[in-house]
Amino acid sequence: MDKTLLRGIRVLDFSRVFAVPACSQFLGDLGAEVIKVEEPLRGDEARYYGMTSDELDAIGGVSPSFHAFNRNKRSVTLDLRKPAGQEAARHLIAGSDVLLHNFRVGTMEKFGLGQVAMMAQHPRLIYGAFSAYGPRGDKAKIGANDLALQGHSGLLHVTGEADRPPVRVGTAAIDLHAGVALGAGILAALFHRERTGEGQLVETSLLRGAAHLMSYFYVEYWMTGHERQRMGTANHLSVPNQVFPSADGYVVIIAPSDEMWARLAKTLDPDTLALPQFTRISDRQTNRNQVIAAISAITSTRSSESLLRELGAAKVNVSKVNSIGEAAEDPQLAQIGGVIEIPGPKGSQRAVAPPVSLGKAEAFSHTGIPVLGADTDAVFTESGLNETEMARLRTAGAFGPVDTDTRRKAVI
Amino acid sequence: MDKTLLRGIRVLDFSRVFAVPACSQFLGDLGAEVIKVEEPLRGDEARYYGMTSDELDAIGGVSPSFHAFNRNKRSVTLDLRKPAGQEAARHLIAGSDVLLHNFRVGTMEKFGLGQVAMMAQHPRLIYGAFSAYGPRGDKAKIGANDLALQGHSGLLHVTGEADRPPVRVGTAAIDLHAGVALGAGILAALFHRERTGEGQLVETSLLRGAAHLMSYFYVEYWMTGHERQRMGTANHLSVPNQVFPSADGYVVIIAPSDEMWARLAKTLDPDTLALPQFTRISDRQTNRNQVIAAISAITSTRSSESLLRELGAAKVNVSKVNSIGEAAEDPQLAQIGGVIEIPGPKGSQRAVAPPVSLGKAEAFSHTGIPVLGADTDAVFTESGLNETEMARLRTAGAFGPVDTDTRRKAVI
Repeated sequence: MDKTLLRGIRVLDFSRVFAVPACSQFLGDLGAEVIKVEEPLRGDEARYYGMTSDELDAIGGVSPSFHAFNRNKRSVTLDLRKPAGQEAARHLIAGSDVLLHNFRVGTMEKFGLGQVAMMAQHPRLIYGAFSAYGPRGDKAKIGANDLALQGHSGLLHVTGEADRPPVRVGTAAIDLHAGVALGAGILAALFHRERTGEGQLVETSLLRGAAHLMSYFYVEYWMTGHERQRMGTANHLSVPNQVFPSADGYVVIIAPSDEMWARLAKTLDPDTLALPQFTRISDRQTNRNQVIAAISAITSTRSSESLLRELGAAKVNVSKVNSIGEAAEDPQLAQIGGVIEIPGPKGSQRAVAPPVSLGKAEAFSHTGIPVLGADTDAVFTESGLNETEMARLRTAGAFGPVDTDTRRKAVI
Repeated sequence: MDKTLLRGIRVLDFSRVFAVPACSQFLGDLGAEVIKVEEPLRGDEARYYGMTSDELDAIGGVSPSFHAFNRNKRSVTLDLRKPAGQEAARHLIAGSDVLLHNFRVGTMEKFGLGQVAMMAQHPRLIYGAFSAYGPRGDKAKIGANDLALQGHSGLLHVTGEADRPPVRVGTAAIDLHAGVALGAGILAALFHRERTGEGQLVETSLLRGAAHLMSYFYVEYWMTGHERQRMGTANHLSVPNQVFPSADGYVVIIAPSDEMWARLAKTLDPDTLALPQFTRISDRQTNRNQVIAAISAITSTRSSESLLRELGAAKVNVSKVNSIGEAAEDPQLAQIGGVIEIPGPKGSQRAVAPPVSLGKAEAFSHTGIPVLGADTDAVFTESGLNETEMARLRTAGAFGPVDTDTRRKAVI
């Protein structure tokens, strides 16, 4: 076995789509063994997200989003609506250190796999529960996704141009933030178990993740009554702190301190920028529109590359607004170990490393995404189920339809 | 001492602004003892962020952003440019379990507090290093902030309306995501130390955090060559999946599956929505504009509240686009324990809970933000420094200017 950080820790993951799969992938990247439990025939719907059948066929049948969050996992199929499927699930839970799920509130209880029952039987179990709006309260039973919580949390309200409708945050930031927070909670619980022997409930939601992302806005509102509004690319914290047009694209320029502003003014154009009415932080807030107009007049005549070079040399915060391809290909990410290689449908394929590196987590071979249910037999056999028991559960529909025709017709 | 999860763990945090302070606050919320090391006189610049002096005075002199990320900490001031300040820092490091910093690459080494030297002396130390673009590579020495990485990572490129310039993600999502990822890494390292006795380097950056948030876009680009573009409030994964106008505001409506779409169509208006050309996922992608126009025609005549109620009852993903105040006041967050009370300048004050809950992390009293340097004497005395040693370090400028006049004139 690899000498990895979470060696010997088995994670049983009943979740689907983005947030919790990203959490279990992170634990897998740290060396945990991750078993993904999927619905027979259909599997995690993220397998087919956002692409036509033709597009899917061209890349081996499974979506890039599923590839992004499901490496280093094995897949078993279980029909949790059937008693035999629930029995099989309980068998795997008995051999697991961590359980993860993102079913709607009450569903795991309906399956006989709820937290109270499972932890009573397995006091060392770490039970990770993820929901949309949390486990209780008026909205507990409402299903929701990243964008719904962008709306509910106020994140949409502060994203967009001042005089136009809100726009979405282009990536599923709440999903992924809440997913990593769940991972942090699981790691804290593993630490606690190592010191005390006790398992525990670890719980978060899109709402908790979103509130953490929005916390400084809420605290300001609570302290002062002030509600921030969307401001295009600008924000309220400092000026300049936004996107500016260049001759061939866009650049971000930020100079929050008076020292950095002075360097910016000297570098770009002292005649129009190194003015007394722009000198101090409060001056630039007061004269926001003039500051932005004066900078734009200069940047729009210069290439992004020259602005990056000159402002960068002057230690002013500057960056280029990259396209997806430019961002993915920029060598810096690979230079810091942020790009890894995993097996893909056409051989080795690039993927994004976990969001933090550990000195003692030795590099290990990454496996690609699992075929739906491919590891069902192996996982149950390893877990001590004998052939007779496997056959009984299979006949009772634990792993999906027994009828071969149904299986063949499934749109997988 | 509180019987909290990270009891007995001491975190020494040299960082400032958002990402790493959010990380250490999270560890503090789990029960770690956090000591914040600040620059004498000035302190963490987030203390004064984004507000005029008058606005600051009205709320006790320290910004809401600082309140949001610096509860449960004590503050010591150290002048790390002075040998005596560096000596004092090494003294505190010797008694700490975790060190955190976000200085530019090479700065801690310049102070004689670099990772290699510190871990050689303290093999159990967990050394958490945070930077903008990572510790090596062409961009290692470039300072940057959240928005700069929104630009660099492609997040800005996919945020905004299709035919207009990019807009910023309204909150510092990369800062906070990378900060929580660093926290997860620290917790993984604590688990490893508990099993092996070994400390280690834990390292991340805005770039690693941003790449994780963008990972499914990069993987798609790497697998197919396709680069996603900004689409206003829509996205490429499903239709409908965006903001719609209501008679009195905006609502988010998402129906990714055909089953949910059928419920939506039946609920809103079967005559204009339950049409064969909209039935399947791929139909709605092909006829995206017609689907959106047909839904908008209906939603714009109804109140947000009625849309929420009716679509919610039909189990369609729907949410309201809340303002900051509406989001902060919505009772659900408090109902799930997402709002806590901490001491503030005018008595008890609301704050946002950490982004994950643990069953065994007992509730404990939160302290408010520390006054700059208020705990310097207490922390060093507790750490075993006697009065003579303290006096020697103080005279040598370890804790800031010895000249009382300079101290009095500081703009704190």
